[in-house]
Amino acid sequence: MAKSNYSRKLAGVRALMKKKKIDALIVPSADPHLGEYVPDHWRIIRWLTGFSGSAATVVITQSFAGLWTDSRYFLQAENQLNNSGFQLVKLRVPHTPEHIEWLQAKVRKGGTVAVDGRLISAGNMRLLEAALLPGGVKLNIKADLITPLWQERPLMPDEKAFVLPVKFSGESRVDKIKRVREKMTEMHADSHLLTAVDDVMWLLNIRGKDLKYSPLLLSFAIVTSDQVLFFADEDKIPSSLKAELDKDGIVLLPYDTVSSVISHLEEGSTLLLSPSTTSAVLYRAVPKKVKIIEEVSIPTRFKAIKNRTEIKKLREVMIRDGVALTKFFYWLEKSIGRETITELSASARLEAFRQEQEEFAGPSFATIAAYNEHAALPHYVPDEGTDARLGKTGIFLLDSGGQYFGGTTDITRTIALGKPDRRRKSDFTLALKGTIDLAMVRFPYGTRGYQIEVLARKALWDNGLNYGHGTGHGVGSFLNVHEGPQTIGSAASGDMKTFLEPGMLISDEPAVYRQGEYGFRTENLFFCVDDRETDHGRFLKFETVTLCYIDRELVEVSLLDDRELKWLNEYHETVFSALSGCLDHDLVEWLRKKTLPIIRK
Amino acid sequence: MAKSNYSRKLAGVRALMKKKKIDALIVPSADPHLGEYVPDHWRIIRWLTGFSGSAATVVITQSFAGLWTDSRYFLQAENQLNNSGFQLVKLRVPHTPEHIEWLQAKVRKGGTVAVDGRLISAGNMRLLEAALLPGGVKLNIKADLITPLWQERPLMPDEKAFVLPVKFSGESRVDKIKRVREKMTEMHADSHLLTAVDDVMWLLNIRGKDLKYSPLLLSFAIVTSDQVLFFADEDKIPSSLKAELDKDGIVLLPYDTVSSVISHLEEGSTLLLSPSTTSAVLYRAVPKKVKIIEEVSIPTRFKAIKNRTEIKKLREVMIRDGVALTKFFYWLEKSIGRETITELSASARLEAFRQEQEEFAGPSFATIAAYNEHAALPHYVPDEGTDARLGKTGIFLLDSGGQYFGGTTDITRTIALGKPDRRRKSDFTLALKGTIDLAMVRFPYGTRGYQIEVLARKALWDNGLNYGHGTGHGVGSFLNVHEGPQTIGSAASGDMKTFLEPGMLISDEPAVYRQGEYGFRTENLFFCVDDRETDHGRFLKFETVTLCYIDRELVEVSLLDDRELKWLNEYHETVFSALSGCLDHDLVEWLRKKTLPIIRK
Repeated sequence: MAKSNYSRKLAGVRALMKKKKIDALIVPSADPHLGEYVPDHWRIIRWLTGFSGSAATVVITQSFAGLWTDSRYFLQAENQLNNSGFQLVKLRVPHTPEHIEWLQAKVRKGGTVAVDGRLISAGNMRLLEAALLPGGVKLNIKADLITPLWQERPLMPDEKAFVLPVKFSGESRVDKIKRVREKMTEMHADSHLLTAVDDVMWLLNIRGKDLKYSPLLLSFAIVTSDQVLFFADEDKIPSSLKAELDKDGIVLLPYDTVSSVISHLEEGSTLLLSPSTTSAVLYRAVPKKVKIIEEVSIPTRFKAIKNRTEIKKLREVMIRDGVALTKFFYWLEKSIGRETITELSASARLEAFRQEQEEFAGPSFATIAAYNEHAALPHYVPDEGTDARLGKTGIFLLDSGGQYFGGTTDITRTIALGKPDRRRKSDFTLALKGTIDLAMVRFPYGTRGYQIEVLARKALWDNGLNYGHGTGHGVGSFLNVHEGPQTIGSAASGDMKTFLEPGMLISDEPAVYRQGEYGFRTENLFFCVDDRETDHGRFLKFETVTLCYIDRELVEVSLLDDRELKWLNEYHETVFSALSGCLDHDLVEWLRKKTLPIIRK
Repeated sequence: MAKSNYSRKLAGVRALMKKKKIDALIVPSADPHLGEYVPDHWRIIRWLTGFSGSAATVVITQSFAGLWTDSRYFLQAENQLNNSGFQLVKLRVPHTPEHIEWLQAKVRKGGTVAVDGRLISAGNMRLLEAALLPGGVKLNIKADLITPLWQERPLMPDEKAFVLPVKFSGESRVDKIKRVREKMTEMHADSHLLTAVDDVMWLLNIRGKDLKYSPLLLSFAIVTSDQVLFFADEDKIPSSLKAELDKDGIVLLPYDTVSSVISHLEEGSTLLLSPSTTSAVLYRAVPKKVKIIEEVSIPTRFKAIKNRTEIKKLREVMIRDGVALTKFFYWLEKSIGRETITELSASARLEAFRQEQEEFAGPSFATIAAYNEHAALPHYVPDEGTDARLGKTGIFLLDSGGQYFGGTTDITRTIALGKPDRRRKSDFTLALKGTIDLAMVRFPYGTRGYQIEVLARKALWDNGLNYGHGTGHGVGSFLNVHEGPQTIGSAASGDMKTFLEPGMLISDEPAVYRQGEYGFRTENLFFCVDDRETDHGRFLKFETVTLCYIDRELVEVSLLDDRELKWLNEYHETVFSALSGCLDHDLVEWLRKKTLPIIRK
C-alpha cells in the first residue's frame, strides 16, 4: 500500500521528535486564543491527519499515532483517518483530556512529552504536569514541530478590522474600560490579561473578519490602571480605527509581543487572568514574583449582561431573522416536490434569505440542516458525502444562526414534511414542553443555570426519554454564538458560581433523538429579565425573543397542559404580529395559518 | 456591674493567652470527630459564654471577644451573651468561617492565632493558613487553654456500646471490611482513616450511647489491607462485643492513641482520609512521606446506600413511627381545649407515644414543636423561655424523628387547629406541591440532587415564595439523622459528584415561612429506587416510605393538578392500609376520615 500524504507527514513529525528527544507529542486543535473557532492557519490536525472535525487531540509516539475525538465525529473520523497512519481513539466523555491517562500509562520514567504550549491552556498544562511529573516524565511546552514541516501553510487572515459603533454596542470603550478598572480594583488586580478574542472585541468595540462564523480580529489585550495595551496586526487596523484608539489612549502593539510584555510585568504586582483561555506559554511568561489571580475574565462576566442598546438591537435583529426564516420555510413548503432540495441547498437558500436582511454579516455557525435520521445526530452538519435530498414526507431539522451588527442569533425549528405519525408528534411535543416549561420559569435572584435545567427535561424523563447535551448557552452580541460564563446545563463541570442575571441572553434547546430515525429540537433565545419583588425577595424570569413559528402539525395538543398551550398560542400571536408587517400578502396569509391558535378539542 | 461568671472565665483565658503569647484564640463548637452532635464534655462554648446553640465559633483577643453564629440563633445569642463579655457577630452565610476574615484584618504581622487543632478540620486549617500565613501571622494548632480552666468539666460519656446484629445491619462487619478493602485497592490507598463516628459504627456494626440523638460510641478506626484498628475506650466495650471483635480480627486500642498510630504509618504508603472530618491535629500527625488521598470516606459512600435488610427494617420502623404519630395527633385533636398543651408538653407526649413502640431508642434530634409564628423559624426548638401554649386555632408544625434499631426517622407535619383561612391553605398547598412533585420525579441514572431540587420549589417560585434551606438530606440506618454524601439542595458547595443511587434514603421537605405569622413544612423520607430501562438508559425514581396522614383541612384542592391529587389520595390510601392494622377501633375510624380521598368539586 502506497504511503499516504498523511503518513509522510507523520514520518516527518516522528523524525523531528527523534532529533529533539521527544517521546510523545501532543497536537491540540486550537489556536493561541483557545476559543471555539480557529483560522485555517491553525488547523494543524486537518493538515496532519485529514480529519476535519472541530474538536480533537492527536498524540504521536514512534510506535503509535492516535486521534481522540467525541462520539459526534466517530464515523467521520473513521472515514477520514483511513490509511492516514492515525487511529481513532473514542472519547468516553466529550471535551475531556482522556489522552492524558494514555500518556500517563505509556510514557516511561525519564521520557519527555511535548506540546506547543501556545495551543494548550494553563489549566490543561497543570493537568498534564500533575499526571506526568510524579512519574518522572518531563513536559516540554515549547515544541513546535509543525512549522518546519508545513509548507504552503495558510497565512494568518489579513482582512481589516472595523469599529462597532456605540449605536450597536451601547457603551463606549472608554466607559467599558473604566468599569473593568473599577472591578480590577475591587479584585486587587494591577493588570488584567485578555486572551479570549471576544473579550478584547467587546472591550474595544472592534470587530474583525478573521474567523468564518465569529466577527473577530485575533488579538490580545492587557488592561492596567493607566494603560490599555492592544496586541494586533497593525496592517489590519484601518487608519480611522487607529485614530480612535489613539484618541482613547489605547496603545497598539504587534500581535506577537504579548508574551514579551507579560514577561516584563512589575515584580510584586498582581495579574488577573483566566486559566482556561490563557495559553501555557503566556502563563509561564509571567514573572515568578507577579501574583496571579485566576478567575473568569471581567469582560466575560460583563459582556454576558447585555445593555439596553444591545437588547433593543437584538429585538430588531430577531424580526429580520424571523422574516428570513419565514421566507425560507414558505419557499420550502412551496418548492418541495417541485425542485430538488437537499440539506446543503436548503442551507444555502436560508443563507440567501438572511443575506437579504439589513446588517447581516454571515452565519453564526455551520448550519445543521438535517433530514430524518440525520436529525438524530445533534451536531450533524451536511457535507457533499452525506447531503440528503428532502422528500415529501419526513422530518427536517434546521439549526442555524446569523451574525448581524445588532446581535447574534441561534434558532432551531423542526418541521414535518407530510403528515407526521403519533409517535413523532408525541416525541416532538414532549421536547417542546421542555422548551416552553423552561421559558416560563420564575425564579429567585441568585439561581444558577444548573438549578433550573430539569424543567427542560422533566416531560422527557417522565416518558423515559432524554438528550445527551446541555440545554442552554449564552449568546454574544455580534460575537460568538457560544458565550460564557452562564450555561443552563446539568454538568457539574461548568462555572458553578454564575447567577442568572437580568440582561443575559441564553438559548433554550431541549431535544429528543431517535437513533437512525429522526430527531426533534425547538430552540429559542431568551433574555433573563426582572419579574417582581415579593416578601421572599427579587424574582427573575425569561423573555423569549426568537421569532419564528413552531410547526403546529407536530404538536400533540393533549400532551400540553393549559399553561403550556396558552404560552404556545401567545407566542404564535407575538410571532405573527412582529413579522407580518415585514412580509408580502401571500406570506402574511401563510404565516397567519401557521400561527393560528391551537384549540383543545 | 458585677463581673459575670462568664467574664471571669474570659479573663482566665486572656491571662493564659498572654502567658502563651497568643494574640487571638479561636474556640470552635466541635469535638475531635467534627460531627453534628457533641457530648457535654466538649461543649466548651456553652461553658465559656453561656450560649447554648449548636453551632458557633468564638474568637478572643485581649480587646475583643466575639461569638459568630447564624440567623436562627441571633435572638438566643443576644439574650444569652448579655453581660458575658462576649458580643454576637452575625454570620452572613450560615456554616461559613467568616471569623477568618476578621482575623485576617485584625491580627498584625508577627502575631499568633491559636486554636485547639483537635477541634477544627484539616480543611478549615488550610483556610486559616491561606488567610494568615501570607500576612506574616503564625498559626498555633496545639492550644488547649480550656482544660486548665474548666473545673468540674463533664466527663466523657461512659455508657457501654452494643452490637447491632446482622438482622438489622444486613451485612456482617467482615463483609463490610472486605468491601471497603476492595474499594481501597481501587483507590490505591494502603490505609484508610475513619474519623466520623458513624462511619466507624457502620463498619463494625456497633452502636453506643455517647450522644443524645445519635446512637454512637466515640471512636476512630484505621483500616489497612490486613488490619482493622479500632480506637475506643475499652471500659465501654462489653466483653461479648470484645469477643466478637477479637474473632473478626479487629484490634481494640485506647481511644487517644490514634494520633500516635497515625504518626507511625509506613513511609511511602498512601492514606485515604476525609479532610472535612479529620482534625488538623490528626492530619498533621501523618508523616511527611505518607501520601494523603483526600476524599469522602468509603464508609460514607457505602452506608448511604441501604441494603435489602436495612430497607425492609426501615419499612417496619415507618409503621411504628406512623402509629406513634397517629396516636399523638389523635390525642392532640381530642385534648386541645380540654387540657393545657404547650410546645414542650406536646413534644414530651410525642416521645412517650414513640417510647411505646418496639425497639425505639430515643429521638433522633431535638423536636421542633412550633405554634404559629414559631413555625416561621425553620430551626425553632422550644425551651422554657419560649414554650407557647397551643390554642384552639392556629398552625402547629411538628418536625421530629426517632432512633429505632431498624432505622432512623425524620418527619414533619403541619396541622391546622381550627379552620384555616384561604391564605394559609394556599401557602400550605404550594409547599405540599413541592413535596409531591419531588416525590414523583423520574430521572436518569447519573442525576445529582441539585439537578432536581427545583421541582420542590417551582410551585412556590411561581407564586413569589421560597424557603431558605435545602430540600433533602440523607438519613442514616439507626445512625445520624443527617448523613451524606447526597443532598437535594441548591448549594454549589455540596459534594457535586454524588449521583442519586438506588438504596439511598433521603428527606423531602419543602416549606414556606411567613415571618411573625406561621410556617408550613411537609416532610417525608423516600428511598431512591430503580424505575425502568428505556432506549435512553436507566431511569430511577423515589418511593416515599414515611407513613402519616397529611392534614386535608389545609389542602386547597384547586391548586393541585390531577397527578398531584392522585398522588395524595394514593398516599393516604397507603397510610391507612399500612397503619390501620396496628390501631384501635376509634383510631382506625378517625384515621379513615383523615385519609379519605379528596374529590375535586
